[in-house]
Amino acid sequence: MEVRGPNLQNDGESGRPTHPRGFPSGEAGKSNHNTGGRYVDFRVSVVLPAGGTGERTGLLTPKQFCSFLGRPLISYTIQAFERVSWIRSVVVVVAKENMDLMMDIIQRFQHQRVRVVPGGSTRHRSICNGVMALGEGETPAADRPEVVIIHDAVRPFVDEDFLHKIATAAKEQGAAGAIRPLVSTVIATTSEGYLDHSLERVKYRASEMPQGFTYDVIRQAYQRCTESDFEFGTECLHLALQYCGTNAKLIEGPPTLWKVTYKRDLAAAESIIKETLSRTACLITGGSAPAVALAGALRKAAGALEMELDVVPDLAGDNGGYLLKEWNFIQVSVSRRLSEVEALLAALEAANRAVLHPPVVIWVHLSGAGESSAGPEPSAFWDLASRARLRNVLLYGLRLHQSKDAERWERSVLRAAEIASALIQGRSPALVGQLLQA
Amino acid sequence: MEVRGPNLQNDGESGRPTHPRGFPSGEAGKSNHNTGGRYVDFRVSVVLPAGGTGERTGLLTPKQFCSFLGRPLISYTIQAFERVSWIRSVVVVVAKENMDLMMDIIQRFQHQRVRVVPGGSTRHRSICNGVMALGEGETPAADRPEVVIIHDAVRPFVDEDFLHKIATAAKEQGAAGAIRPLVSTVIATTSEGYLDHSLERVKYRASEMPQGFTYDVIRQAYQRCTESDFEFGTECLHLALQYCGTNAKLIEGPPTLWKVTYKRDLAAAESIIKETLSRTACLITGGSAPAVALAGALRKAAGALEMELDVVPDLAGDNGGYLLKEWNFIQVSVSRRLSEVEALLAALEAANRAVLHPPVVIWVHLSGAGESSAGPEPSAFWDLASRARLRNVLLYGLRLHQSKDAERWERSVLRAAEIASALIQGRSPALVGQLLQA
Repeated sequence: MEVRGPNLQNDGESGRPTHPRGFPSGEAGKSNHNTGGRYVDFRVSVVLPAGGTGERTGLLTPKQFCSFLGRPLISYTIQAFERVSWIRSVVVVVAKENMDLMMDIIQRFQHQRVRVVPGGSTRHRSICNGVMALGEGETPAADRPEVVIIHDAVRPFVDEDFLHKIATAAKEQGAAGAIRPLVSTVIATTSEGYLDHSLERVKYRASEMPQGFTYDVIRQAYQRCTESDFEFGTECLHLALQYCGTNAKLIEGPPTLWKVTYKRDLAAAESIIKETLSRTACLITGGSAPAVALAGALRKAAGALEMELDVVPDLAGDNGGYLLKEWNFIQVSVSRRLSEVEALLAALEAANRAVLHPPVVIWVHLSGAGESSAGPEPSAFWDLASRARLRNVLLYGLRLHQSKDAERWERSVLRAAEIASALIQGRSPALVGQLLQA
Repeated sequence: MEVRGPNLQNDGESGRPTHPRGFPSGEAGKSNHNTGGRYVDFRVSVVLPAGGTGERTGLLTPKQFCSFLGRPLISYTIQAFERVSWIRSVVVVVAKENMDLMMDIIQRFQHQRVRVVPGGSTRHRSICNGVMALGEGETPAADRPEVVIIHDAVRPFVDEDFLHKIATAAKEQGAAGAIRPLVSTVIATTSEGYLDHSLERVKYRASEMPQGFTYDVIRQAYQRCTESDFEFGTECLHLALQYCGTNAKLIEGPPTLWKVTYKRDLAAAESIIKETLSRTACLITGGSAPAVALAGALRKAAGALEMELDVVPDLAGDNGGYLLKEWNFIQVSVSRRLSEVEALLAALEAANRAVLHPPVVIWVHLSGAGESSAGPEPSAFWDLASRARLRNVLLYGLRLHQSKDAERWERSVLRAAEIASALIQGRSPALVGQLLQA
């Protein structure tokens, strides 16, 4: 049994939105396998075992299927590989009972170059299934990967730089693995539960993921290893050493490689994802003088809150690029009519923006400066926000009254920036449709 | 140089608010050293080394001084010990340059039974200073601790149960320490950066904190150990074994013992603190029939959102206890006047509630049911919220219109519960003073 993702034949060119500015790895380039100065002239595929049961988080849902901002963790991890143009395919190995769920995730989040294969009863059996799926009967040798990267579904923050190091070292040495310094002292215990001795911390490291192997090494290691290895073994690196005599190169990875293990890690992962989505916003002025002045003041205030605002008059021409890369939009209107924000919502929908994350749209109504100083109609705004919510867009409103009193105006602008920043960072579905007051 | 906290002579009876319901450990009892069935008939003190520089978080502020909801991490850790009635004193060891900061924290958060002593150039020298401070010249032997618990300033979630296990085992065995299973495989590396071998995971454990020692064992260990131990040693348990022949009992601790090490851990800690503060709220109806009906419906809706609401007519009599233990209040008013919420704010201030955390107060204005269906005056509410903010209370407003249409009313109530839950969980200072619409 093997199931292919909906777009497997589509080799890397996707209609899907690209990644936001500022995520750990750079934007994936085109298919020439040359990104940001990194060149990989051999074929690389990924095996992603995702069969874990997540018992350590204390949750019913396995960690890899836990949702963050409406999207399961494994989808973030798959995306980390999709962003890398020189990775040809990703094989996700899941428990048989989760095959349908996994196919559904691939379809919903429009993942490319992904295959799903059923796992075995242990971690090693699952990885082995994934590796073997890469070189199955009908696969011509010239299509088989030369290097296989093995990763964890629950380490979503791996970046292209480090994947490049692992792939290159694996190609040269036959095997390579990520290591990290030990956080705690490791001690040996007696069978009665007493201290036997503590290890000298400098000689030891924690073995982490990803690991890389030449296809031949990892395949042979699994062909030669014993039932006991399949049952109780923990380290692919160890199998490569024992059965192929391949001594793995160890490379120290960044702290972002950490594995989502406990409930607290879910909170940390959500916080990192939210922070990453919240660093920048695109502010659309519509071009009127009071809106442009407000935009400049908001940009300055937001800068002090560590949020970078790009100010544009509209999203025409080159500015349309924001629709493909930005997760946060602030539309300033001097009119109480909602036509500008409606146009923005339509453009986001046309750009298929809300597939991976819900974008935030904040409508700032600047009164006392334009055609009418009457406030917006709350119920119309509410209805619009409810409709946007159905399309996975979070729409909030913010009223700001232009004041002639400079000090008062400065306070309002600062407050508007603080509120916008809080809404963008919070991304709370419960607050959509609210018209706040700055 | 040694500095005493402002209330050191006050042995455990404090005017400070007690802890919220639902925090890991139970409420601290009176001073008879008997809490929740646990009895400790020996003298226990704590040494809390807090001299770390926090370089691994990548932040300028050392982790123990990073703030969560306006309060530094070390204050949470100190509180974890203050809650335990049978702990006589806590000695915090900080770098000389942070002595003033630490004294300020103790004063601001009204910590009791705490002394501050200056640290040394290494972790062991700092712990040693703390241990020696517990038995200084003038201290009569009968006042010296029999057991010393050593903990980390950056493990704020330790609970009384586990402290009891460590203290008891230390009294019996001379030494005891917390262990946890290894999350990653530990490998030995060659000097050239290759895999040497991997350790058999079942035989090893991560050594964590807290650890406990009889006073004599830990004092002797530090009196006998070498300069090299002071400089390079990592394990107090190891010193006890080497210099006193004391074999430590190892006890598996809960995952909450984890150490705030990386930036992601700060996010996880904040999330745990927020979640802990957000599980319950006290809803005050004022007694009117429509408010009581709304309260019942809100309680049901909040239950589905995993928040427990206690409904009371007012805070008179026994209900005044909520002022001392609850972090979230919802005041339902059928009148647009703010007198009820003003009274609540005054009561919170009188109860000194906002010392440790900012309490959340949500004023729910139910219109269409009472004396007037006009909405509240936004600017008056804003002013009230600004004044409350200065006293560390987060005040938000929520308008709800009583509807005769059952379906519509049910939707409004659900929305009100969702908004209240989002405000309580978010605890966002940027949104105070807003009048939201359910």
